[in-house]
Amino acid sequence: MNEKRLQLPNKPPQNEEKLEEDLFPYYYGEPGSVPGTLDIDPDAAPSELVLIDYNQENAVRVQQISPEQCVYYLDTESVSWVDVRGLGSEDILIKLGQVFNLHQLVLEDVVNIPQRPKIEDYKNQLVIITRMVIPDSDGKGFRSEQVSLILGEHYLLTLQEESSMDCFNPVRDRLRGNKGSIRQRGPDFLAYALWDAIIDGFFPVLEDFGERIEDLEDEVVHKPNEQTLGKIYQVKRDLLTLRRAIWPQRDAINALIRDKSPLLSEDVIVYLRDCYDHTVQIIDVVETYRELTTGLMDVYLSALSNKMNEIMKLLTVISTIFIPLTFIAGVYGMNFNPQASPFNMPELNWYWGYPVCWAIMIIVASSLIIFFWRKGWFNNVSEVKRDG
Amino acid sequence: MNEKRLQLPNKPPQNEEKLEEDLFPYYYGEPGSVPGTLDIDPDAAPSELVLIDYNQENAVRVQQISPEQCVYYLDTESVSWVDVRGLGSEDILIKLGQVFNLHQLVLEDVVNIPQRPKIEDYKNQLVIITRMVIPDSDGKGFRSEQVSLILGEHYLLTLQEESSMDCFNPVRDRLRGNKGSIRQRGPDFLAYALWDAIIDGFFPVLEDFGERIEDLEDEVVHKPNEQTLGKIYQVKRDLLTLRRAIWPQRDAINALIRDKSPLLSEDVIVYLRDCYDHTVQIIDVVETYRELTTGLMDVYLSALSNKMNEIMKLLTVISTIFIPLTFIAGVYGMNFNPQASPFNMPELNWYWGYPVCWAIMIIVASSLIIFFWRKGWFNNVSEVKRDG
Amino acid sequence: MNEKRLQLPNKPPQNEEKLEEDLFPYYYGEPGSVPGTLDIDPDAAPSELVLIDYNQENAVRVQQISPEQCVYYLDTESVSWVDVRGLGSEDILIKLGQVFNLHQLVLEDVVNIPQRPKIEDYKNQLVIITRMVIPDSDGKGFRSEQVSLILGEHYLLTLQEESSMDCFNPVRDRLRGNKGSIRQRGPDFLAYALWDAIIDGFFPVLEDFGERIEDLEDEVVHKPNEQTLGKIYQVKRDLLTLRRAIWPQRDAINALIRDKSPLLSEDVIVYLRDCYDHTVQIIDVVETYRELTTGLMDVYLSALSNKMNEIMKLLTVISTIFIPLTFIAGVYGMNFNPQASPFNMPELNWYWGYPVCWAIMIIVASSLIIFFWRKGWFNNVSEVKRDG
Amino acid sequence: MNEKRLQLPNKPPQNEEKLEEDLFPYYYGEPGSVPGTLDIDPDAAPSELVLIDYNQENAVRVQQISPEQCVYYLDTESVSWVDVRGLGSEDILIKLGQVFNLHQLVLEDVVNIPQRPKIEDYKNQLVIITRMVIPDSDGKGFRSEQVSLILGEHYLLTLQEESSMDCFNPVRDRLRGNKGSIRQRGPDFLAYALWDAIIDGFFPVLEDFGERIEDLEDEVVHKPNEQTLGKIYQVKRDLLTLRRAIWPQRDAINALIRDKSPLLSEDVIVYLRDCYDHTVQIIDVVETYRELTTGLMDVYLSALSNKMNEIMKLLTVISTIFIPLTFIAGVYGMNFNPQASPFNMPELNWYWGYPVCWAIMIIVASSLIIFFWRKGWFNNVSEVKRDG
Amino acid sequence: MNEKRLQLPNKPPQNEEKLEEDLFPYYYGEPGSVPGTLDIDPDAAPSELVLIDYNQENAVRVQQISPEQCVYYLDTESVSWVDVRGLGSEDILIKLGQVFNLHQLVLEDVVNIPQRPKIEDYKNQLVIITRMVIPDSDGKGFRSEQVSLILGEHYLLTLQEESSMDCFNPVRDRLRGNKGSIRQRGPDFLAYALWDAIIDGFFPVLEDFGERIEDLEDEVVHKPNEQTLGKIYQVKRDLLTLRRAIWPQRDAINALIRDKSPLLSEDVIVYLRDCYDHTVQIIDVVETYRELTTGLMDVYLSALSNKMNEIMKLLTVISTIFIPLTFIAGVYGMNFNPQASPFNMPELNWYWGYPVCWAIMIIVASSLIIFFWRKGWFNNVSEVKRDG
Repeated sequence: MNEKRLQLPNKPPQNEEKLEEDLFPYYYGEPGSVPGTLDIDPDAAPSELVLIDYNQENAVRVQQISPEQCVYYLDTESVSWVDVRGLGSEDILIKLGQVFNLHQLVLEDVVNIPQRPKIEDYKNQLVIITRMVIPDSDGKGFRSEQVSLILGEHYLLTLQEESSMDCFNPVRDRLRGNKGSIRQRGPDFLAYALWDAIIDGFFPVLEDFGERIEDLEDEVVHKPNEQTLGKIYQVKRDLLTLRRAIWPQRDAINALIRDKSPLLSEDVIVYLRDCYDHTVQIIDVVETYRELTTGLMDVYLSALSNKMNEIMKLLTVISTIFIPLTFIAGVYGMNFNPQASPFNMPELNWYWGYPVCWAIMIIVASSLIIFFWRKGWFNNVSEVKRDG
Repeated sequence: MNEKRLQLPNKPPQNEEKLEEDLFPYYYGEPGSVPGTLDIDPDAAPSELVLIDYNQENAVRVQQISPEQCVYYLDTESVSWVDVRGLGSEDILIKLGQVFNLHQLVLEDVVNIPQRPKIEDYKNQLVIITRMVIPDSDGKGFRSEQVSLILGEHYLLTLQEESSMDCFNPVRDRLRGNKGSIRQRGPDFLAYALWDAIIDGFFPVLEDFGERIEDLEDEVVHKPNEQTLGKIYQVKRDLLTLRRAIWPQRDAINALIRDKSPLLSEDVIVYLRDCYDHTVQIIDVVETYRELTTGLMDVYLSALSNKMNEIMKLLTVISTIFIPLTFIAGVYGMNFNPQASPFNMPELNWYWGYPVCWAIMIIVASSLIIFFWRKGWFNNVSEVKRDG
Repeated sequence: MNEKRLQLPNKPPQNEEKLEEDLFPYYYGEPGSVPGTLDIDPDAAPSELVLIDYNQENAVRVQQISPEQCVYYLDTESVSWVDVRGLGSEDILIKLGQVFNLHQLVLEDVVNIPQRPKIEDYKNQLVIITRMVIPDSDGKGFRSEQVSLILGEHYLLTLQEESSMDCFNPVRDRLRGNKGSIRQRGPDFLAYALWDAIIDGFFPVLEDFGERIEDLEDEVVHKPNEQTLGKIYQVKRDLLTLRRAIWPQRDAINALIRDKSPLLSEDVIVYLRDCYDHTVQIIDVVETYRELTTGLMDVYLSALSNKMNEIMKLLTVISTIFIPLTFIAGVYGMNFNPQASPFNMPELNWYWGYPVCWAIMIIVASSLIIFFWRKGWFNNVSEVKRDG
Repeated sequence: MNEKRLQLPNKPPQNEEKLEEDLFPYYYGEPGSVPGTLDIDPDAAPSELVLIDYNQENAVRVQQISPEQCVYYLDTESVSWVDVRGLGSEDILIKLGQVFNLHQLVLEDVVNIPQRPKIEDYKNQLVIITRMVIPDSDGKGFRSEQVSLILGEHYLLTLQEESSMDCFNPVRDRLRGNKGSIRQRGPDFLAYALWDAIIDGFFPVLEDFGERIEDLEDEVVHKPNEQTLGKIYQVKRDLLTLRRAIWPQRDAINALIRDKSPLLSEDVIVYLRDCYDHTVQIIDVVETYRELTTGLMDVYLSALSNKMNEIMKLLTVISTIFIPLTFIAGVYGMNFNPQASPFNMPELNWYWGYPVCWAIMIIVASSLIIFFWRKGWFNNVSEVKRDG
Repeated sequence: MNEKRLQLPNKPPQNEEKLEEDLFPYYYGEPGSVPGTLDIDPDAAPSELVLIDYNQENAVRVQQISPEQCVYYLDTESVSWVDVRGLGSEDILIKLGQVFNLHQLVLEDVVNIPQRPKIEDYKNQLVIITRMVIPDSDGKGFRSEQVSLILGEHYLLTLQEESSMDCFNPVRDRLRGNKGSIRQRGPDFLAYALWDAIIDGFFPVLEDFGERIEDLEDEVVHKPNEQTLGKIYQVKRDLLTLRRAIWPQRDAINALIRDKSPLLSEDVIVYLRDCYDHTVQIIDVVETYRELTTGLMDVYLSALSNKMNEIMKLLTVISTIFIPLTFIAGVYGMNFNPQASPFNMPELNWYWGYPVCWAIMIIVASSLIIFFWRKGWFNNVSEVKRDG
């Protein structure tokens, strides 16, 4: 067992990959199966436990600790944070359930992911299911991961889907560096600090959305094309996902503040109110973005109609000018025999016949051009060129 | 009376058929008729009773038991589960009502199907009307069936529309195999286990919907056709049906949790909370899908507009190029007599007349082609080809 | 006074006529007039009173009784049901008000129809304003009528707009035939029975709507025409009317259940809960239908766009094929003088000139036909034929 | 001071004029100014006070009374109704504030119009801000006016924007004629009677809206034109105004009923419930109309699409029939030299050449006409004519 | 320290500039950072403190006071208003936090802007985060600024983003001039007065919106163009911003009124109710405007469709008239040899051939023109001209 002074890894996450987005967002087991059945994904990373045990004076960190070894730390007065990364090892998870005395439904919820965020109060334990979002590096999307927090009197147990990355490093730094008041407080403050980090992680994701929407606004107005609506739809769909992640967290925090579990000190509730405000701000922005994307769809459809109008105007202008001219040319292409009667196309033999014919055609064309120019159609035709 | 040790049938359901979907989804009797009137559908399967009586040590199963024979088991302390399949035998149902002492309105609700899911608390009985969904084997739809649960102190009475299939076999297996804690608990836990199986049965149906929507997203973007919107509308309509089945079940579970009937142990309420979470997840997904289908309609309509734009562009390009050329050709097809005057079509006798005429036509055509090419119309014309 | 044993008329309603639908659905008097002013419609049927007085042993029916004559029956312990049909006789209505001791606002509400359904609790009287719907015989609509129920300790007073028909005959049959428990119960049960008949009368009307919507779904998909949207709009409008009739009745029943007037026995409240469930089912269906009609509008609009696309494709195909051919023909119709120069239309004198010209035209046409065929436009053209 | 027996003017309002509708509907003062600042509109009519003082036996009316003169009547037990018409005289209004002991915020709200309707309870005074609507004489719109009611123990103070007209004359008639029970009751009943008159004044306005919507339904279906949508939009906008006037009044009445001020007798609250029902009916109708106008927009848009389809069908029919014929004519207008080769247009010299050419053209045209006739396009073309 | 009698600056704000609108509207820090971290914007104006200390008799003003110097005034009974302008000086802000004993979360909220408006009750301090809006001078937009109010027993601390301008000058004037009752009241009234000024500042901004919407209504009906929908969308987006600023302020005021902090006198709560009414009015108008802009989008889309219809009508009229004529001309341009047979185009040699041909063409054209004229198309064509 490799126990040493708290040294936190700061390596950037490797082999990040976009998870295949699936339209059905929740886990479900075989209908009718025994409640509490664990359903381990064979591709899941093996579970790895990291324990950080601290009080105001000391902080130790133990990597790759086994569930049984945690018991020693749990029995002390100091705060123990057991962080489980990867949910692939059934035996470790079951032992964890025994060590921490978890209800079988709790174990099911933290292992069989994804679940909807929620808060469950089991008298001596508060179970918090949250959802963390991590922006993609290209700023075009995000992925999300379930994080479960189980808060007891002297400990906090956290379980994460993936072993490679989370947004908890700043909190680990505060623990290691004894920054702020975190080492003087209980596990409830730690739980708050982690949840706050999770919630605040929504902000950069939303900022990416803001940029995507601004790009789309630009695209819709200046160069709408066939892909545009698909992109708007994608933003809408992503916003629905985000919304499904944040709304229940707001409700969960609200329930925590309202129900005042004895596991939460009055002091931490003040901090949770701040956290609640952040969820409200996030929801605010999500709903605003949803309205904007709906508005963008309408703008896009009207841009299409405008383009159609311009195309039709061009066709109408060309046809309306040339069809009468072609008719005139057609008339004097007729072969009525001038010798058969003086009424048969005498124009063909007039001295000024051809020039007069051209004059008539030019007058007709000019009148039509002036007609369209007065209606302002030519401005628009040139605008078509700009829009492409 | 054929009593024997518990042996559960595992035969796959036969002669499954898609029920004619009817837009009016509920049962109603003759207005003004006596409350409690039973309205037996002559095509309904004859009622068949199966009793499973169990405690921690023993479990017996009695098939084709008569209502009167149940009394013996109901009088014991062990838990009796009477499962009625098929609602076609009026006499059996009326006797059941007497044996279980059902209020006439309860009997009406469980027999005259379909009803809206709900929960009624008759002090010594909890009546739960639920709706079970079963996915079609082709993954393109589902059918639904009413299941009523009547919970007493030592018994659970369930009534199902159809005799051939249900989703309760895993629960029967748990009873037979004494898996989990089900045999150590009362009929309230059994009721929970069955209801949980019903609720969890919505998940695979929803997953099918997810796939249908993904297929439609693909279709809308890559090959929209006349059937597409019909399909989207069908998904929307099916989602409305699903929604009408799950919302009232959520409310019913919530009422159970809140009102704390003495027939439900505190312990089972914890499990019901889990069940409630599942209904919330299902509703979440149904509403998300509904929003997505609405968005898809918009995408489809804009795809239509885009196609129209491309068609019109093609027409406009062809017309705009050839109409002026045809006019020029028409001019030199005129028959003005060159001998009548030197101004009458002298071009026709010029040495370079015909080549110059062609040159003019080529210049006009090229200018127009360049004009359209600069506007980027040709890219789109080729895209039309791709979209078909 | 013609008193006799209970003999109920069973004559079918005569001279049924569709009421002119008016967009403003409620009655209103002169602003500022004295509250309680009766506003008798001169075309209203004269008021006719029918009294049915019953207890478990006996039931008598008195037709054309006068308000004063009712007093005798009201003073007995047996239940008196006074049914007023037609609201055209001011003096009878005013006397009724005195006999039953009605508040002037109550008299106003039951006489000056239509009113919004509601429930008013005047301590010794419960006033229930309901709305009855009766399907038209052609299944294409319905008409509605206000029914007011005034429940006292030993009596029930009902007032109906029209004398010719109602949906209470089954209840009268139950009274006459002593079916069910109705004769053993008080006027509160009678009030429930009548109201239940009114509520259940919505179901067949809704079923007609279901059929209308299914017909429209068919029409929209297979033969959309100019009348279609008008019909959808009409369904939408009718649903709004229906909705305005049922929502307040739900609220009224709910208020009755919640507020527990001493005039209602505990037992009847159980039955009212059943009645409440029916209103919820009706609302459920009305809202579902409203969503479906909205969806139908979208499908219809997209069907229009599809038809337009097909029309434009046809035009584009024909134009695109023939315009270049016409141009070629036009070129060789020019009259450049071959004798003036060897460059002037030498093709006209070539040996194979005309066949080559045809060959070129056939190649051009074939290329274009293949181009359109590859894009799959011809499938669609044939589909246009099918759609008509 | 001209005191005389109550003689009410019945002169019709003169110089009625449509108020310029302004999109911003409320009054606001300079941000940061002292609360209670009065902002007198220089164009407002000078304030004129009319006092009616009554009890069961007597009723006197004093016109053009000054605020100070009111004190005499206020000190008696009889009910004093002081009606202020016109809000243009600052000194009178300030004196009124002193005589009636108004809070500076109350004075501000009644003078600086328009305000949102509301109810304020100042212990010894109930302040009711209402909004009266008056239909335009052409039935195409309405205008609205703020009426404030300040109810004390023995008095009612009302303030109206305009001096020329209100809808209180029927109430004044009841006071003068001692009709109904109004003279036997307190100022609370008078306040009810006036407010009821205001609320009931919405009904005729709404009936006008009903007619406008029915006219629009007709127009949309039978002769949609460019103005139609503008009219629908105008109705929508007017409905929003109406809605903003009635919703807060409903809330205000509801608050009055719920909070039971000692200034309101139990008896009057029964009447207010009736008044509340009317507001609910009005809101019902407003919301229904709003849904109908939204539906009308969709019908209109589809009518436009239908017209476009018909126009395009006409163009397509004409083009499709004549373009091939013109091509054929063009072919035989070519000048290939028959003498140069036997293959060069031998048709021109055939004996039956010209008749056969016509025969071909007639066959082509007939086939196309039959094709379109089979598709039913010609029915529609005639329908275009009907629609105009 | 420059202490002098109260002399308020009245210089107009200089170098006003439109802030770059950013779609993500709130501040957020690094996820996981220590709560209470201040994040000073390097471009922010340096903080400048102005103290106004007053009671009924005296009022002094101290400019550029340091936080420590405030202590002297805070210790007196008189009301001290410390106004901080500019949030750029970290040391001053931290000292302020110490002097006023601010919770670290409070300091974070007032410094790390923007935050969502809210109210926090810290027993001895009320923290109010508000948002002030300032109309742009061109009436086409607005910008907004966070103002935080921290109310203690004898002091009010306000913090503003920018040093250059605010809407508090009228309040300062009232303090200086001892106008109204402001100097006789506590800091709670001052807080009300400032907040009221902030809220009332929304009215002129909304009035600008009203004008923008009216301009757009005009534009949509009389000269819709490609920019129109973009402008409507911009209004919609700005309204969302405004809405996000005012809704939470309404909730905050409501919470203040409901929760009755001991720091607020009963009297001030009456004034806050007035302030609450204003927020309700603002929300009312914002929602009305949002509905109107949605309606405008529909009107605009239908205007586009109407224009398209007119364009197509023009094309159809021209094509339908000239295509048959061109065909006739084409027929008599054919070169069938009249000498080869008497059936080959004998018309060409008829005496009246050419005039009859013209007559036929004129009859065809006239019939078509009458046909279109009867359908009323020409009215519309002229309307196109008007619309441009």
